[in-house]
Parts: sequence; structure tokens; C-alpha cells
Amino acid sequence: MNIQKVLIANRGEIAVRIIRACRELGISTVAVYSEPDRDSLHVRLADEAYCIGPMPSKDSYLNFTNIMSVATLTECDAVHPGYGFLAENADFAEICESCNITFIGPSPEAITRMGDKAVAKETMKRAGVPIIPGSDGLVGDVEEAVMLGRDIGYPIIVKATAGGGGKGIRIAEDEESLVKQITAAQQEAQKAFGNAGVYLEKFLTGMKHVEIQIIADNHGNVVHLGERDCSVQRRRQKLIEEAPCSVLTPEIREAMGQAAVRAAQAVNYSGAGTLEFLLGPDGQFYFMEMNTRIQVEHPVTEMVTGVDLIKEMISVAEGNPLSFTQEDIKINGWSIECRINAEDPERNFMPSPGKIGFYLPPGGLGVRVDSAAYPGYTISPFYDSMIAKLIVWAPTRREAIAKMKRALSEFAVEGIHTTISFHQKLLEHPVFLDGNFDIKFLEEYEI
Amino acid sequence: MNIQKVLIANRGEIAVRIIRACRELGISTVAVYSEPDRDSLHVRLADEAYCIGPMPSKDSYLNFTNIMSVATLTECDAVHPGYGFLAENADFAEICESCNITFIGPSPEAITRMGDKAVAKETMKRAGVPIIPGSDGLVGDVEEAVMLGRDIGYPIIVKATAGGGGKGIRIAEDEESLVKQITAAQQEAQKAFGNAGVYLEKFLTGMKHVEIQIIADNHGNVVHLGERDCSVQRRRQKLIEEAPCSVLTPEIREAMGQAAVRAAQAVNYSGAGTLEFLLGPDGQFYFMEMNTRIQVEHPVTEMVTGVDLIKEMISVAEGNPLSFTQEDIKINGWSIECRINAEDPERNFMPSPGKIGFYLPPGGLGVRVDSAAYPGYTISPFYDSMIAKLIVWAPTRREAIAKMKRALSEFAVEGIHTTISFHQKLLEHPVFLDGNFDIKFLEEYEI
Repeated sequence: MNIQKVLIANRGEIAVRIIRACRELGISTVAVYSEPDRDSLHVRLADEAYCIGPMPSKDSYLNFTNIMSVATLTECDAVHPGYGFLAENADFAEICESCNITFIGPSPEAITRMGDKAVAKETMKRAGVPIIPGSDGLVGDVEEAVMLGRDIGYPIIVKATAGGGGKGIRIAEDEESLVKQITAAQQEAQKAFGNAGVYLEKFLTGMKHVEIQIIADNHGNVVHLGERDCSVQRRRQKLIEEAPCSVLTPEIREAMGQAAVRAAQAVNYSGAGTLEFLLGPDGQFYFMEMNTRIQVEHPVTEMVTGVDLIKEMISVAEGNPLSFTQEDIKINGWSIECRINAEDPERNFMPSPGKIGFYLPPGGLGVRVDSAAYPGYTISPFYDSMIAKLIVWAPTRREAIAKMKRALSEFAVEGIHTTISFHQKLLEHPVFLDGNFDIKFLEEYEI
Repeated sequence: MNIQKVLIANRGEIAVRIIRACRELGISTVAVYSEPDRDSLHVRLADEAYCIGPMPSKDSYLNFTNIMSVATLTECDAVHPGYGFLAENADFAEICESCNITFIGPSPEAITRMGDKAVAKETMKRAGVPIIPGSDGLVGDVEEAVMLGRDIGYPIIVKATAGGGGKGIRIAEDEESLVKQITAAQQEAQKAFGNAGVYLEKFLTGMKHVEIQIIADNHGNVVHLGERDCSVQRRRQKLIEEAPCSVLTPEIREAMGQAAVRAAQAVNYSGAGTLEFLLGPDGQFYFMEMNTRIQVEHPVTEMVTGVDLIKEMISVAEGNPLSFTQEDIKINGWSIECRINAEDPERNFMPSPGKIGFYLPPGGLGVRVDSAAYPGYTISPFYDSMIAKLIVWAPTRREAIAKMKRALSEFAVEGIHTTISFHQKLLEHPVFLDGNFDIKFLEEYEI
């Protein structure tokens, strides 16, 4: 099957990214947009564009009926959901299927199975993918906890199943401590949430967020494209991603890659997906979740592998086998991505919507900008504050960092606050330069 | 020696290119500018900037005294000349040397030797680099011409040494014809130029302009970085360059590369340089000239080799050995560059200076923009009309062309005429798509 026309059910830079791939493939594009997005770049760049409703997103970018009406009326044969919005909505994928429109992504079954945390964990466990050792559900009594503790190994974290905000969380350093903490946590949870249920998990420290990009076709082929280190996070939001990961040995890379392939095979996966892992200082890694879609940070993988992930997603959605084998994938050089947000780093990253005045993205060798911004564009307060992804490639990490600093220094965005200055400081930080930071990096250090 | 501070004796995109490389290397930059270039991007991006005089260029960008005064007063330890202006001026290179400032380029001797066409040709001949067979000077009489003709082989072109504008040029298909044409050409030349001197050259048709990038250090190492096909020319001005060249076999590539290395060695070359060849349909190639500087089209070589040529130029100027060997150089994928000029393709490419309004360069995977343009920038009528180099990379030529078409389609430059539309038509032309075009392509076909 040849896809002729794609509806892009998204906005912003990822809509632009998908339109670019389609245009290069000779595929027509249909953009959809909400009322406030009338002047967006994806609307300008697509072959056709249709308004699908007002704010909030449930009336536009999440509006199945309007999106499917546009797809049907414009005779699209496929929909690309991007990330966010409907990208991991199994019902939407199913509706596309029932309308005979190709959903460029995995099957509704795979989305559902990976979308449910407990099911996903169980599936991974059975596929031999390491998961964080724990009680696998609620702990009955102290005796059971002690038995479990011997398997899990200390330190152990005791968590309230109804918990939140740090309440009902206790750390047990050894068996004696566990006996005390279990009772205390149950009492605290009962008081705070009216639910005494607690469960156990191995307490992990110094963990990196390392994820593996995979892509699979409909013929049973799964290839992994190496890892991304996404440990630089602020309030669980990734700010800088890089490929490869500084601390990964070839052996751990291989083990993580194989685990990711097994995970994808376990759910008959098709399309691009990401296995998110926690990686410990001892080289042990644990499955966190699978994102059944393209990710914001996919460009760093493209830069070091030479693979165009969006084009490959479209190709496998057409029913083609993958255009490469595992042996073809070589990691070449180093790539870093900075997410540039319309936020004021001086005022606790408060969103800074408004009209962009002068705008000039950086250029030159090894610099890639994925953005929907332009001079005179008004950043809407209604959506995600990310206005550009600045991606660099260089032969080594040291050179990639120097290139990123150069590119940040010439990125001109006037009229709004951005996080460019924050990234500049971050890229000077000795812990970042060292590469051996973990997910607590931005909590522990003043930037 | 570590270079700490570089004066960039140039303007426009190449000045910006050099500033970027310096910044990534942690080297300070000093820009110089003419009065009309006060608001140029290279002035904004450099660490320091000084006006060196008014128009015309002899009073500013060619003004040795002013440039060397700035270099000395700002304590620069090196000068990068870019291309054009002083880049192939041996006197300037010598003055730098005598002021104890590193000229980032070859020695004055190498510049001089390659700058004189006759000396260059003789040097190449002795180095075993194929040159266009010919009379090696003026032809005495018909008898000598006939003798020479047997060596050169037919067809032969008879050219007046004082010639120009096509006058005094005759083609001889065979010996009988040569006898007639020699006399006629001599008479015509005598009449037209008052000088009857003629010389012979093999008449070549279907030639491609294929050039080899080399780089050499001060320790006798020379490496070639593959070829560029620059056959798409209009009035001898290159419009599109690509690497590699469609028709080159690995054997011819190897032979051309080795010839280029021999050529560089013959003049104890140091720095980046280019050997320009004519390549015939039979695979024979002939030396045209050597450019002893970085070239406009250097980015396509960077894209397929991963080498940063400007950084490597700086490194060898510091006295370091090359950071790679011949074996390290692998040609990966395909790169194309379109020179975007401020000219009106609808009005015979008349220059179109003026103020740029809305400006948004293309972005995304595999797209590189080297430019000094920005929103609100006024293109001066006094300089070269090139406003941007749009460079793409993709795994194959077919994909690179598709990417270039996509990138051109989203390149927004308002307020002036540009050659973007011309490139778009050119990229649809079956002869271009085929790849087997020669330097007469744009003369022979209507775009």
C-alpha cells in the first residue's frame, strides 16, 4: 500500500516535522488546527489545512469526530498523531482502523497493553525485561514484607498505594527497619488517604533515565537504534537529551537494546516506540514504561544513526519491511538536544506567551532546528511552552557541547522570555560536563 | 602554538562560518567591516568588530594597512581570509607572516605558484597530474602544428593567445582541417588583436567540472576528501554543487584523489585547497586550476565526510598534524548545495538588492543553512549577490534532491527577488535528475 495523503493530528514543531517528511516522500499533507492556531507554521506548510474547533483541546486536537471528518472529506489514507494529544489513544487508533484510514503507529492492542502500567510491567516481566524488584502488589502483613524484603534486597522503599505528595513513603535500610516502617507507613496511609495499603519497591539512587528507541515492521522485524540519556529533567520534564549516553558500556547498551527488542516483540509492536529505563551506577537497568509513539527527543537518535524515524514510521505503516537490519545501525558521533521553552528562567520558569519579534535560529554545520516559530508568531498560552528544539551533532561529546553553546549564543528570539539563557548556564555546569549526572541533577544543584 | 584570537578578513556568510568555527573552538573573533556593512551579521556575531573603510573594496576588504592595523591593535594571532578578497593574495599572506600573524592558509610561495596559470600547469605536468593536452605555448608554423596535432589527438581547438569573446577560436576535426584553421586563425587574430599568436588544445566536449578537496598539514601529510560535482554553472558561476559526483567510479575517484594529493605535495601545500578538474565522458580528467583557499561549496564535502574543514584549517595553521588519515575518510550519503542569490531569475538574473522583510530559513533533519541574512537585513548592491547557501544531506541522491525541494519550498525571503524559484525548476529537470549533465547543461537547456 502506498500512502498518498496524510492528516497530521497535531500542532507545533512535531506537525511541521511530519509535514517535512511527507513532502520529501511526495505525500500530500492535511493540517488541522484549533482556532487560536490559525496562524501556525504547520498550517502554512501543509498542502491543505482545516480548523477543527476552539480551545480547549477536547474540542479540537482531541476531537475525534472533527478530525475524522476532515480525514474522510479530504480523502486521507493515513493519520499521523505525533506525540501527546491522540498519539497513545487506543480508541482513536481503532476508529482510524474502522474508517479504513491507516493509523501511523502501533495497533490499538499494543497501545492499550503498554498504557496500563500494571499490565505493561507484567508483560515485561514475562518477556524477561528487568523491572524494578518489588512486592508486585500490596503487602499483606509484616511477615510477608520481611520475606519479600529478602528477595528484593535493601534499601527498600515502602509506598502507599493511594499515596501522593510524598506522604506514606518510607525508606527501610534493613530488615529491622522494614518491620518498623511497614507498620508506620500503613498507619500514616490509613490516616492520610483512608487506605492502609502499601507496597514495596527496591529503593534506587543515582539513577539515569536512559531510553532505547526501537522500530518494528508488520513482518516481525524489530530493530533498536541505541539509547538516549534524558536524565536532565526539571519536575520530571526532560530539558536536555543526548545520544549516546556517556556512561553506557557496549555490553550494557547491547543488553538494553536486546531487552527493548524483546519488549516490542512481546506486544507484536509495529512502528516507532521507546522503552524507558532507569539505569543504576552498577549498570543494572529497570523498565519504567514504553511510549508507543514518536518522542520529542527522537532527533538525537536520527543524528547519530542517519535514520529518518518519521519516514521509517510511514514506510512500515505502508506495510514495508524495515529498510535496515540491526547490523546496519551504527552509532556515529554525538548529538544533543535542548528544548527551548517560552518560559522565564528568572521567574521560576513561568510561561512567557506573547508575540515573537525578531527571530533568527542558528545555522551552520551540525546544527538542526525543529521549530514552528517564526518572526511575528504569537506563542499561545493554551499549549505546551516548547517553541524550538535545538539539536547539534559533532564527532565527540565535548565538541557537541561546544557546538550547542555556540548555537545557543546566536539563537535570537525577541519579545518573549525563553530558556536559552538557562541552557547556556546548564552547559557550563561541571556535573553536566562530566556526563555522570542522574535524574536528581537539577534538584541537587543550583543552575 | 595555540591560536587565541582570529581576525576574519571577510564578510557575509563565510565570515559567519569562520566565526562559528572559532567560537566552537574557544577562539576569540575580530570582525572587520566596510561602511555599508555596519549592520551585517558577521559584525553582530563576532566578539569585536571594527570598520576598515568605505566602498569600494580596495578601501576596505582589500585594504592591507587597515586590516593589519586592526589585527595588530586587537592582538590577533591569526587571520582567516575566507574566499575572494585577500584569500589568494600572496602579498597579504607574506605581510601577515612578517607581522608574526598566522595566515590561515598556504604559504605565499604556494599561492604564487598556483596563481600563475602557466607555472601551475607546468608544475602539475611535472607532478604527473593530467593536464589538457596542447601545444604548451605558441605554435610556430603549420608544420609544427601538424606534428603537435598527432600527439594531442583530434578534435583540436585553435585559440588566439590574445583572444577573447570567441574571436580567433577554430575547431579542427582532422589534420587537413588543422592546416586550414591554423592559417585562418592566425590571420583572424592578427586582424582582431594585432597579434597572430595561436596555441592548440585538445577540444573537449561533454566535460564535467569535478573538483577534489584536499587538506594538508605542515608535516607533509596530505589527505583528499573526495570530489564535488560543480557542473551546474551559469556564465561560469557555480549554482549547484554536490558530493559525491554521480558518474564517478571508485577507480576514477581514487585516481583523481591521488592526482590531487600529488599536486599539493608538489608545492609543499598546507591548509585546505581544491584541485579543479575537467572530467570527460571517457573517464579522462584534466587539471584546470588549484584554488588555494576554502571554497564556497566546501559544506557538501563536510556533510559527506563529517570533517569540519574550517576547524581543520585552523588546527593545521596551529602546527598540528591532520586529525585524520586518508583511511579515516569515508564518503557517507549525498549532499547538495544550492546558492541562493538576490537576483531576479525572471529578468535575466538581474541583481535584486534591497531590504529583506519576512525571513525564515528552512530547518529539520538534514538541512543546513549557511547565511548572513536575517529579517530586516538590507542586501547591499556593492557585493556578491549570494545571500544563503542551502545545503542538504540524505542517504541517497534521490532523497537529497527531494529534501532540497522540500527545503526550497519552505525558504521564505520577502522584499527582494531570489533564485529560489529558479532552483526549484532546475531540480525538476530530467537532465539534472539523471545526474549525467556537463558544464554546458544550463547553456543547452531552457530551465
